[in-house]
Amino acid sequence: MMFCLLVAESALILDQFLFSHDAAKELKEAISKKNLELVYLYDLNPVDEIWKESRPKPPNNPIRVHDMKYAGLDVASKLSSLRAELVGTGASAIVISMLDEVAWLLNLRGSDVPHSPVMYAYLIVEVDGAKLFVDNSKVTKEVMDHLKNASVELRPYDSILSEIRRLAAQGAQLWLDTSSVNAAIVETYKSALDKYRSNLGSKGKIKNKRYDESNGLSEGPSGVYMRSPISLAKALKNPAELEGMQNCHLRDAAALAQFWCWLEEEIHNNVELTEVDVADKLLEFRAKKEGFLDTSFDTISGSGANGAIIHYRAEIGSCSVVDPNKLFLLDSGAQYIDGTTDITRTVHFGEPTAREKECFTRVLKGHIALDQAVFPENTPGFVLDAFARSSLWKIGLDYRHGTGHGVGAALNVHEGPQSISYRYGNTTPLQKGMIVSNEPGYYEDHAFGIRIENLLHVQEINTPNRYGGIEYLGFEKLTFFPIQAKLVDISLISDDEIEWLNNYHSQVWEKVSPLVEGSARQWLWNNTRVIHKQ
Amino acid sequence: MMFCLLVAESALILDQFLFSHDAAKELKEAISKKNLELVYLYDLNPVDEIWKESRPKPPNNPIRVHDMKYAGLDVASKLSSLRAELVGTGASAIVISMLDEVAWLLNLRGSDVPHSPVMYAYLIVEVDGAKLFVDNSKVTKEVMDHLKNASVELRPYDSILSEIRRLAAQGAQLWLDTSSVNAAIVETYKSALDKYRSNLGSKGKIKNKRYDESNGLSEGPSGVYMRSPISLAKALKNPAELEGMQNCHLRDAAALAQFWCWLEEEIHNNVELTEVDVADKLLEFRAKKEGFLDTSFDTISGSGANGAIIHYRAEIGSCSVVDPNKLFLLDSGAQYIDGTTDITRTVHFGEPTAREKECFTRVLKGHIALDQAVFPENTPGFVLDAFARSSLWKIGLDYRHGTGHGVGAALNVHEGPQSISYRYGNTTPLQKGMIVSNEPGYYEDHAFGIRIENLLHVQEINTPNRYGGIEYLGFEKLTFFPIQAKLVDISLISDDEIEWLNNYHSQVWEKVSPLVEGSARQWLWNNTRVIHKQ
Repeated sequence: MMFCLLVAESALILDQFLFSHDAAKELKEAISKKNLELVYLYDLNPVDEIWKESRPKPPNNPIRVHDMKYAGLDVASKLSSLRAELVGTGASAIVISMLDEVAWLLNLRGSDVPHSPVMYAYLIVEVDGAKLFVDNSKVTKEVMDHLKNASVELRPYDSILSEIRRLAAQGAQLWLDTSSVNAAIVETYKSALDKYRSNLGSKGKIKNKRYDESNGLSEGPSGVYMRSPISLAKALKNPAELEGMQNCHLRDAAALAQFWCWLEEEIHNNVELTEVDVADKLLEFRAKKEGFLDTSFDTISGSGANGAIIHYRAEIGSCSVVDPNKLFLLDSGAQYIDGTTDITRTVHFGEPTAREKECFTRVLKGHIALDQAVFPENTPGFVLDAFARSSLWKIGLDYRHGTGHGVGAALNVHEGPQSISYRYGNTTPLQKGMIVSNEPGYYEDHAFGIRIENLLHVQEINTPNRYGGIEYLGFEKLTFFPIQAKLVDISLISDDEIEWLNNYHSQVWEKVSPLVEGSARQWLWNNTRVIHKQ
Repeated sequence: MMFCLLVAESALILDQFLFSHDAAKELKEAISKKNLELVYLYDLNPVDEIWKESRPKPPNNPIRVHDMKYAGLDVASKLSSLRAELVGTGASAIVISMLDEVAWLLNLRGSDVPHSPVMYAYLIVEVDGAKLFVDNSKVTKEVMDHLKNASVELRPYDSILSEIRRLAAQGAQLWLDTSSVNAAIVETYKSALDKYRSNLGSKGKIKNKRYDESNGLSEGPSGVYMRSPISLAKALKNPAELEGMQNCHLRDAAALAQFWCWLEEEIHNNVELTEVDVADKLLEFRAKKEGFLDTSFDTISGSGANGAIIHYRAEIGSCSVVDPNKLFLLDSGAQYIDGTTDITRTVHFGEPTAREKECFTRVLKGHIALDQAVFPENTPGFVLDAFARSSLWKIGLDYRHGTGHGVGAALNVHEGPQSISYRYGNTTPLQKGMIVSNEPGYYEDHAFGIRIENLLHVQEINTPNRYGGIEYLGFEKLTFFPIQAKLVDISLISDDEIEWLNNYHSQVWEKVSPLVEGSARQWLWNNTRVIHKQ
């Protein structure tokens, strides 16, 4: 998302708090080529004036403590590991502005951002202390005690820049991940540090060396500009986080069974439902489940041709009625107290065409191939991406999105650092405890969209050999929900693939049936039966 | 291969003609860290003295014209395409020192290097001319006429550096691929150019700009340092080259059938044969085939544990006897007048163990998966590499070499720029007309080695769809020779894989049986029979 204001023909005004340093730099370079000037909002009082009346008030929702039974690791332990990293790089402190990183490190959750259980805050972790910059009105007694226990001090949200200046004035060596820390913080630190260094230089204490971003350890502080270690630490889920994810996925599946049972019945009874009606009803079922907090992103509810729009968002008034004679793609997820879900299923309410079945089956074959992959440790996600595409490639089809993204545990539905994509820039290896989505698709413009998405977590596989003395990894499913068998073209699918599907459905029944009753249970039964190769 | 002489404790002497510029630079950097000095042989008369007596004389074999029916494209056309590239980059000439590039461009072949039909030569192609630097005694009347037709002038081999100096003195903008052109040429050009530029600078003709390798188009010549375009042009085989490759592979297969028939018979009769005996006999069969010139590399003939040594070379005296009760790996190839072959087969003469069969079958599954891959244009080889490994990975096995290398058409058995490897540094896309080997393996230390290698060429696949409006590519086999069915564990192999094997063997019989008679024909028949899933 890009927020900027063009106020004149010759200048672009940018809010430094809304752009990471790297993004701002990139924008600046692009703009200079077009003979425009980049002006930082932060330096511009007139613009603040413009905003004064109309600017929406920041949200003011209370923060809550994320229970240890879901978090699995206490704040002191997390901070202690982080401090070991600080010492290792020679930094005296790290500034964290990624909201999910702040929430994960402090075992706190908020509700300032739609779909993400985070709060607006900055965190500075020093070798011997930590300060949370947050609006005081959001901090309950419980949160206050929780932070005190971990020796985290509270500071006003707006005082972040003055604290950065104060640290720089002491010659603090700050660790800033410029890909995530906003431009305001980075610029403030750099200019305050320049002042510090020139003061010292004039006193003859340090040589006034050339400013060198690449070497944070040169004489005198110049900052450490490396990727934050929290992104990876957060991605490696501990057993409590995995258990929370597993549990919430089963409750989510129960809500989905009730929903799909209801939807098929309505369609069968010729009730006219729009894509938005359907998304709303799904929310209704989910909201009744224990620990439900929010959807984890805007539901993608696409009938027929709308399913081919990858990031389609149905809107009241303009959206379509769900067509019983077309494919229907539903990509949705929820935030629960113990975890985050993200699932896509594609169904047909009537008789699918041979073309729809062939495409669906090839997407499913890709989904199974990735699900079943075993790979040596240190394998980046992109190495596995082709497994998910190869069945489509064989008939000249493909899809224009990645196959898998990281997912937070009761946090953002999209997170790094790993991914499974045809783009091979991300060389982060898949590691034990990471969660990824498995979501190959196929989109036929103006006709239909197909996507089959489960969440998986990476685990060690107990292979009979360990060539190279290393671990071999694979995936365990988190999502247990039927895949519509009607859409499978049996002639295209191998014995192993049928076995995978039957085995999966038997697990779905076993795990989810205890959580549903009546017609939803019957629906689940009907949709988890063994299929045979004729 | 690294050639260098350490003559003192403080200096390493390097022959600049034997190292590419980039390799010499890398070595220089490594050496400076060790407080050693790098001295160029070229500047050292005393060392030339040392060599005077003992240095082997350069080979003096006649060059021959590579017939148009095999080359497919005349020299004038090749030079004309190259000149268009020169004009495109602003270079006035390109210096080519890769021997296979010289041979390919000029449709010439030599025999100065074992296994590679090339001659020692340099070539400078200018916008309006071309000069071949080669020992005159190798140039026959036919070659002379051939070169004259293409307006290529002859120059003494040893005059290359003086020609470089002459061109630099005229301010020529030379295109040098520093990854392949030797250090002597690059250094000579750069220092001659410095002289030219400072002369001009003092005359006020050009500003004395900072020397900038990255920008060959800055004011005044500074050289163009980019990858040579010939490597890719040579890799994209034309129909005549492909036809030559196909034909020589069938003759090669006939020799192999005679050889394997003989070998099995000998082993059956308890004749003791060493790994070297076997390689020699194979050469004997190949040498009788039409157009045979040489082996294309040193045969890898490894019985039992020796098969686990990836680049094993059996030597008289030290090598093993071929053990009838162990796996035997044979990787060999030949240079023919019309093409180059490279094939590996692994066999057992007795009863293979379950372990050997499982490993062989998983290697075969990987071989088939890569053989059958279809992929969108612009796909680099590394994207496909995991297809060849995934069956091994499932039980914790792997192999420590790439899966495929490029192969020249009646040229070097290893060539770039493409490869299929787990190393993802090579992003060259696989393109129509490229030839690659498909050679997954598995090596169990101190026990056995398995490799199954065919050569493939990349071709367009007529897929029923063309998502994205692009071409989808796949492979066509060049190698037609039985894969030992006895080693296949039927329980591990899918219906599609059995069908692949049966279909392949039926093609082998159809294509190769007309070229063999008697017991070899019977052997081929026995080894191309349909196998069934019990």
